[in-house]
Amino acid sequence: MLAEMDGFEPTEGIVMMAATNRPDILDPALLRPGRFDRQVVVPLPEFGERSAILKVHVLGKKVDESIDLDTLAKSTPGMSGADLANLVNEAALHAVRSDRESITQADFEAARDRVLMGQRRESVAMTDREKEVTAYHEGGHALIATLFAHADPVHKVTILPTGQALGVTMQLPEERHAYSQDYLEDRLAVLFGGRMAEDTVFGVTSTGAANDLVQGTELAKKMVMEWGMSDRIGPMAWGSKNQVFLGEGLVSGRDYSDETARVIDEEVERILRTQEARTRHALIEHRGALDRVAAALLEKETISGDDVAMLVPTPSGAEEDPSSANSPTSSPSLDQSSSD
Amino acid sequence: MLAEMDGFEPTEGIVMMAATNRPDILDPALLRPGRFDRQVVVPLPEFGERSAILKVHVLGKKVDESIDLDTLAKSTPGMSGADLANLVNEAALHAVRSDRESITQADFEAARDRVLMGQRRESVAMTDREKEVTAYHEGGHALIATLFAHADPVHKVTILPTGQALGVTMQLPEERHAYSQDYLEDRLAVLFGGRMAEDTVFGVTSTGAANDLVQGTELAKKMVMEWGMSDRIGPMAWGSKNQVFLGEGLVSGRDYSDETARVIDEEVERILRTQEARTRHALIEHRGALDRVAAALLEKETISGDDVAMLVPTPSGAEEDPSSANSPTSSPSLDQSSSD
Amino acid sequence: MLAEMDGFEPTEGIVMMAATNRPDILDPALLRPGRFDRQVVVPLPEFGERSAILKVHVLGKKVDESIDLDTLAKSTPGMSGADLANLVNEAALHAVRSDRESITQADFEAARDRVLMGQRRESVAMTDREKEVTAYHEGGHALIATLFAHADPVHKVTILPTGQALGVTMQLPEERHAYSQDYLEDRLAVLFGGRMAEDTVFGVTSTGAANDLVQGTELAKKMVMEWGMSDRIGPMAWGSKNQVFLGEGLVSGRDYSDETARVIDEEVERILRTQEARTRHALIEHRGALDRVAAALLEKETISGDDVAMLVPTPSGAEEDPSSANSPTSSPSLDQSSSD
Amino acid sequence: MLAEMDGFEPTEGIVMMAATNRPDILDPALLRPGRFDRQVVVPLPEFGERSAILKVHVLGKKVDESIDLDTLAKSTPGMSGADLANLVNEAALHAVRSDRESITQADFEAARDRVLMGQRRESVAMTDREKEVTAYHEGGHALIATLFAHADPVHKVTILPTGQALGVTMQLPEERHAYSQDYLEDRLAVLFGGRMAEDTVFGVTSTGAANDLVQGTELAKKMVMEWGMSDRIGPMAWGSKNQVFLGEGLVSGRDYSDETARVIDEEVERILRTQEARTRHALIEHRGALDRVAAALLEKETISGDDVAMLVPTPSGAEEDPSSANSPTSSPSLDQSSSD
Amino acid sequence: MLAEMDGFEPTEGIVMMAATNRPDILDPALLRPGRFDRQVVVPLPEFGERSAILKVHVLGKKVDESIDLDTLAKSTPGMSGADLANLVNEAALHAVRSDRESITQADFEAARDRVLMGQRRESVAMTDREKEVTAYHEGGHALIATLFAHADPVHKVTILPTGQALGVTMQLPEERHAYSQDYLEDRLAVLFGGRMAEDTVFGVTSTGAANDLVQGTELAKKMVMEWGMSDRIGPMAWGSKNQVFLGEGLVSGRDYSDETARVIDEEVERILRTQEARTRHALIEHRGALDRVAAALLEKETISGDDVAMLVPTPSGAEEDPSSANSPTSSPSLDQSSSD
Amino acid sequence: MLAEMDGFEPTEGIVMMAATNRPDILDPALLRPGRFDRQVVVPLPEFGERSAILKVHVLGKKVDESIDLDTLAKSTPGMSGADLANLVNEAALHAVRSDRESITQADFEAARDRVLMGQRRESVAMTDREKEVTAYHEGGHALIATLFAHADPVHKVTILPTGQALGVTMQLPEERHAYSQDYLEDRLAVLFGGRMAEDTVFGVTSTGAANDLVQGTELAKKMVMEWGMSDRIGPMAWGSKNQVFLGEGLVSGRDYSDETARVIDEEVERILRTQEARTRHALIEHRGALDRVAAALLEKETISGDDVAMLVPTPSGAEEDPSSANSPTSSPSLDQSSSD
Repeated sequence: MLAEMDGFEPTEGIVMMAATNRPDILDPALLRPGRFDRQVVVPLPEFGERSAILKVHVLGKKVDESIDLDTLAKSTPGMSGADLANLVNEAALHAVRSDRESITQADFEAARDRVLMGQRRESVAMTDREKEVTAYHEGGHALIATLFAHADPVHKVTILPTGQALGVTMQLPEERHAYSQDYLEDRLAVLFGGRMAEDTVFGVTSTGAANDLVQGTELAKKMVMEWGMSDRIGPMAWGSKNQVFLGEGLVSGRDYSDETARVIDEEVERILRTQEARTRHALIEHRGALDRVAAALLEKETISGDDVAMLVPTPSGAEEDPSSANSPTSSPSLDQSSSD
Repeated sequence: MLAEMDGFEPTEGIVMMAATNRPDILDPALLRPGRFDRQVVVPLPEFGERSAILKVHVLGKKVDESIDLDTLAKSTPGMSGADLANLVNEAALHAVRSDRESITQADFEAARDRVLMGQRRESVAMTDREKEVTAYHEGGHALIATLFAHADPVHKVTILPTGQALGVTMQLPEERHAYSQDYLEDRLAVLFGGRMAEDTVFGVTSTGAANDLVQGTELAKKMVMEWGMSDRIGPMAWGSKNQVFLGEGLVSGRDYSDETARVIDEEVERILRTQEARTRHALIEHRGALDRVAAALLEKETISGDDVAMLVPTPSGAEEDPSSANSPTSSPSLDQSSSD
Repeated sequence: MLAEMDGFEPTEGIVMMAATNRPDILDPALLRPGRFDRQVVVPLPEFGERSAILKVHVLGKKVDESIDLDTLAKSTPGMSGADLANLVNEAALHAVRSDRESITQADFEAARDRVLMGQRRESVAMTDREKEVTAYHEGGHALIATLFAHADPVHKVTILPTGQALGVTMQLPEERHAYSQDYLEDRLAVLFGGRMAEDTVFGVTSTGAANDLVQGTELAKKMVMEWGMSDRIGPMAWGSKNQVFLGEGLVSGRDYSDETARVIDEEVERILRTQEARTRHALIEHRGALDRVAAALLEKETISGDDVAMLVPTPSGAEEDPSSANSPTSSPSLDQSSSD
Repeated sequence: MLAEMDGFEPTEGIVMMAATNRPDILDPALLRPGRFDRQVVVPLPEFGERSAILKVHVLGKKVDESIDLDTLAKSTPGMSGADLANLVNEAALHAVRSDRESITQADFEAARDRVLMGQRRESVAMTDREKEVTAYHEGGHALIATLFAHADPVHKVTILPTGQALGVTMQLPEERHAYSQDYLEDRLAVLFGGRMAEDTVFGVTSTGAANDLVQGTELAKKMVMEWGMSDRIGPMAWGSKNQVFLGEGLVSGRDYSDETARVIDEEVERILRTQEARTRHALIEHRGALDRVAAALLEKETISGDDVAMLVPTPSGAEEDPSSANSPTSSPSLDQSSSD
Repeated sequence: MLAEMDGFEPTEGIVMMAATNRPDILDPALLRPGRFDRQVVVPLPEFGERSAILKVHVLGKKVDESIDLDTLAKSTPGMSGADLANLVNEAALHAVRSDRESITQADFEAARDRVLMGQRRESVAMTDREKEVTAYHEGGHALIATLFAHADPVHKVTILPTGQALGVTMQLPEERHAYSQDYLEDRLAVLFGGRMAEDTVFGVTSTGAANDLVQGTELAKKMVMEWGMSDRIGPMAWGSKNQVFLGEGLVSGRDYSDETARVIDEEVERILRTQEARTRHALIEHRGALDRVAAALLEKETISGDDVAMLVPTPSGAEEDPSSANSPTSSPSLDQSSSD
Repeated sequence: MLAEMDGFEPTEGIVMMAATNRPDILDPALLRPGRFDRQVVVPLPEFGERSAILKVHVLGKKVDESIDLDTLAKSTPGMSGADLANLVNEAALHAVRSDRESITQADFEAARDRVLMGQRRESVAMTDREKEVTAYHEGGHALIATLFAHADPVHKVTILPTGQALGVTMQLPEERHAYSQDYLEDRLAVLFGGRMAEDTVFGVTSTGAANDLVQGTELAKKMVMEWGMSDRIGPMAWGSKNQVFLGEGLVSGRDYSDETARVIDEEVERILRTQEARTRHALIEHRGALDRVAAALLEKETISGDDVAMLVPTPSGAEEDPSSANSPTSSPSLDQSSSD
């Protein structure tokens, strides 16, 4: 391809464009001046951009007069153009399945929930015990997300199985351009909420929280190794070097000592244990609320974040984050906020 | 393939579908929005689904009126659609070999046992000593599975060689969506039952329990490294990162320090030794029952879980798990429950 | 290719030329005498060379009489011939967009800023809080660069988002042929300026400084491992061996002991912590100036280095580097000096 | 191939079969239900099966009436069908070379010895010293195998060079389905018998026992790492994970800590040193017998196991294993029992 | 190729020849008897051979009667036949550019200097400060090479930039067949001369000596790991095994313990620090001479080794190596002796 | 190929043969019974075999009546058939160059020396100092080989450069089937003889003994790691596992702990230092003999082993190995015995 590029005469008035999702593994030679003069970064769309994208995709589709694309755009941070196109498509399918002639705001909301939470799996036959454990597990996630000030607020909680999970807690992130340490710590706490609820109530843990542990460990590692959030490690970024391009080296081993690796492990452990303990204490302190949330889940199967909030005695800090209470959506950039 | 996908016009009404058994090694680019919009997870079938699948496969086959596909579906958790198709096929073959004109419930049960336990190997000439050692080995597996409250109950025990094993103990798992720590510990104990019986009775170990050790070690590693079941390691998931896709890195080395590796090893060792000791003590305490089970095996070659239970003086906890006593099947997701 | 080269008769009067950007990964056999007799290194152009290159590229373009290519050449150290060609092109586009018939000096300056700082991204909707954090972050970079004697002087600071950054601080490096330890230490301090400002003012750090940490760590590693700037490591170059060519060995592992790796890590940490502390103290000492710079940014969004200097009470050492105050440009050889 | 398999209609009545000697490196996808429904393990033939196989292979060959294939089958445990076919072939060649018109039992026995011990190499000119050292080396192997109760009994010993060895000690394993720790320890002792005899008699070791050390070390490693025969390591299987299939990971490094590796090394060393010391003591205690066996070898070059037994004063334990004294054959599953 | 070789009949009278520059990575099978019977090593030419080679290359070129090829041959140890051909070519070009009709001895000398020192780069605009630093840096190299008895004598020193260096110190090695430890230690000292001069005079180090550090570290590593010149390591060669040929093993990791690696690192460090200290002391002691050499460089830009010697007060040991004072050339086998 | 092999009908009377020099990297599947039934090892020829091979190769060549092929066969242990064919060829060439009409015994001896010592390189111009150092270096090798009882006796010593060496000491190994520890220790001493002579006489070492260090280290490693000759390591073989075949694993890392690696390193060091010290003491004790041998070399350039022996005062142990004094040849199986 380079050979062909070299063959073009610059005066011919042809502009060569190329796109990639993996700029980190491009041959650096491609990016040198004289090859591609301009590199245009296309980040995920901001609110205004999402609104404009939605307007493009509803063109030619019958939509109810009442629909408010701005509200929808506000509740979908982290979605790409293709995500939004798919969302409109799902909403249209939902309207058809509901025998409506035009797409309503409810169709959009149903489509968004379906995209973010996954599709219900009706065939799963849970035992009563499994239902109870799942209710406390999801109740634990939801309670912690409601109690802790910097956590993304809860949108919905369900013990209806979807995909491979027995239940889902769906949170509502704001549009953020960076994550503070406070936010990340509360995020870890929410992840541990399910496992700690099981442990607190039933006195035994199970393999069901394995994915929460994976997510929590990855997050804590980044806090320690990339984001400088461990005082013992200090203002350093270990292991962040990209060495994927073949010309740069086939193998990229660990570039620090085993002693540093040990301190990193200890710091990751400390961060995780700290949030685990904090989570456990909160669940013990608010055991009544946990029982109420679990009972509500066992009764109604799906409840809203507002339902959860009403079962919790005025958590401290709920007022600190009032702005984030109205836009239901997941936070794609830090992966799935839902958990089984 | 991507190039071709890009070439399709979205308005042409063509839906592109693809299936994989290894989603973990897909190029992430394939899963980005705009490529495959929906990802449909197809898990192993639940009870109701298995029943429906069986109904499809018996169509066009002569089946006895008495057959009860729901009972069969209940006793085959962990089987996939293809497994069930094969099961029906084996049952038909069994009926033909038995000179029956239609498939009976007994044919289905024989087929299931054959699939789960393997085919008998009649040519193996065991010495009396080998028979005795095997009887105690399988007797040890069966006795522990009967004594311990959270273990899957015993379906059949045999000292007739099958495949590469001199004997088999077949357990009856329930349909589970997650595994509790109690269950996993008893599972380790059952695995050690054979080796400890040999050691207790004959005072010497042999290479015959090598596969039990491999299974036990793998299980204990997962408890420590993935499922957060070691207090010393804490709520962490080490080594669970998938790094198989080439673009992500050719080699995925150990991502923790040697000190962490040491603690992991110690915890794996502690868990294994704890269950080994527990198993040994139980076998010494119930030596009479062990002798009776081994004698029964030497006499009858194959005995049922009920036979074993009758030789054991009312084990504590037998009542705790009454629901699991009636569905004979293996537990594929944690690999073979049978052992030599 | 070698085979063909061997086929040429030396008396035929044909000269064979070849060019590469990666001399380090050539098969050494190519460079042996008798193959390519002369190796001509083509480094980045010096001032006089840049001036001549610019003259070539403005040929055939309508340029205002007032333009001064020497001034432009002076302000673009580190740019290659292709960079300069692109710069002229951008200037022409800027003139067209500004409805001018010929390119003026202002067009050249706008083009240079655009190339070095990236393109503004107008759709980003920052919250007031985000604007405030960004103002202090960029203010921190700018204040340290103004206060510390060996740092490259500030050209412009902005909290208008460009590319993937929420703000940019653009410095003005001189033309240098080597970097002194003083310069590198101040460079680290400038990198930490943003993160320390956030920490000092808001008491919490965020993921926004991740790239600063990566740059700082890479720089400190080179100081310790390649440039002999750690007394504990001494006059050694560890890990600088190029082993990419396949015939030389597929894998190039670490060629020193873990003890050496430990000391390297400690020295990298020491250098980074020292500059972090120095930065923090300077920001606390000049908190008033920091507040003034942040306030100016919040008010005007973009301010010049001179604006910053006027908000700072006569920093010590400002006189030490007077020559460097007039040529606005980035320092490509040590990567991006701008940061979010 | 999978694509073609998928293309077959299941109703066509075609059965697809495939065979492999390396099931451990198959793509697991091949073994999933719906691909190959039945996996038929074909182990090495048992006694009855070997007898039947021999009967097939002598068909159409002139065999003496006196031949007793059952006796031959008894003395060839560990041989595969192809081994037995080859054995019959070698016997036929031996009969032809002996100018016999039909194959006799003696031809079968000569063929078996030739297959198990290798072909004599007549051109080797050994010095008297080399002959003496070899006589003591093989005498050491043979004496220990005769003295120790759990060792496979000796069939023949020779100081006539065969293949690359200067001498061979051929033992007679029984048909076993597993190996006890007692057996393995005596096996190590027999391996060390040659080296220790050289050391005891001549006071110096040579490179001639290198292969014995390799075999002993491999065996002791398996005892420690796979068979749970070290109390310090406990009931664990380290390093037994198969990771060869490419999709599973290109590289399978050590999956335990260096501390565990250290304990493994110490245990391997302990086991080897214990058997070495036991061997040395036995040789010193029975120096007279060793001298007698070496002298017999120097005189007759080849002697039988019975000859050795008559030169040894009633070893303790000889009665413990009476059944194993009559079937001369090697033990393929633990590799070569012969040694130089 | 082997297949074809095997196809040749030995009686056909055809001789097969092959040449390689990498005998270490040949398949050993190629070198076995019966393939290539004779292996002819072609080392770099000795003095007499160089003289004969030069005579071949001046044939057909107009050369001045006065030229003395023996003198030229004497001053070009380490050059290959191709190097010498190139040298003659460069001399011819120099004569043409100087408008001479025949090549003179001066043309040969200019050509040799150009080949060994690189081509001047006239466009580099150094600041006065840079010139001063460079003068002291090159002055340091030159002074140490003049002061220390076993160092190769200085031929020329310049602060005119060539290639990527701001200055060059060119030494005059003799023809050597091996290197003594004395020689290697002085070589390290000369390498450190530049960096220590900067440090002594200006109190700060820069990135300009990075290449000197790489060369010094490589040299010290070889002294410790390959040449037995460390008493603590002793008479051993670590890591010298060539394992490049694929059949021998894809990866050749470190074949010694981390403790050995640590001692190697300490010894490399000790050797480097010792020579650094020795260099520093010499520069402090002879600060006057250093100032004089630097001043001469700043004044004249290029000075000869004799000029340097006249500025230095009778260094001890200058008489010890009188024979080496007259042949100006680099020492290719230990890489570049010149430095920036 | 296997597919084709499988295609042959066994009754067709076709015998399939294949040869390899690397049986260790064959796919084990090839060697399974039913593929290649017989594996015929072809070792290096013994004395009688060499004699017969030589007789074949002199057929059709004019040889002097006096030639004694048995004597030649005796003096060429370690040579393969191809080596011997080449030897006859070289002898014929030597006879032609000597204007003889038939090949004499002297031609054979000259050919053998040429093959074993390499071809003289006449162009090397050594300085007097180099000649003196080389005389002591080779003298050291030769003196130790003469003094120490188990060393192979000296055949010739020369300071005439051959190949890449400045001198050669050629020893005379016997035909051996194994190596005793005594022999290996003396071999190490002979290797160190050159370096220690330089050190003792001139007080400085050089890079000239680098190859001796490589050979010594390799030998000591094998003594410790493969041949059980270190009491601290014991009767173990570390690292001797062949893992080259791809199906077995792409990468074969170190299979023991770093602690074991450390002890291995210490033992290798101990063995090497012990022999170095022993060598040094012998050279100091016999300094007079060393001076005489060096003087003889400086005078005559090449001397015989007998010449060396006459310059040495009756070394102890010379009588212990009388049989080995008459067959001049190298020992290929332990690589080159000659050294520079």
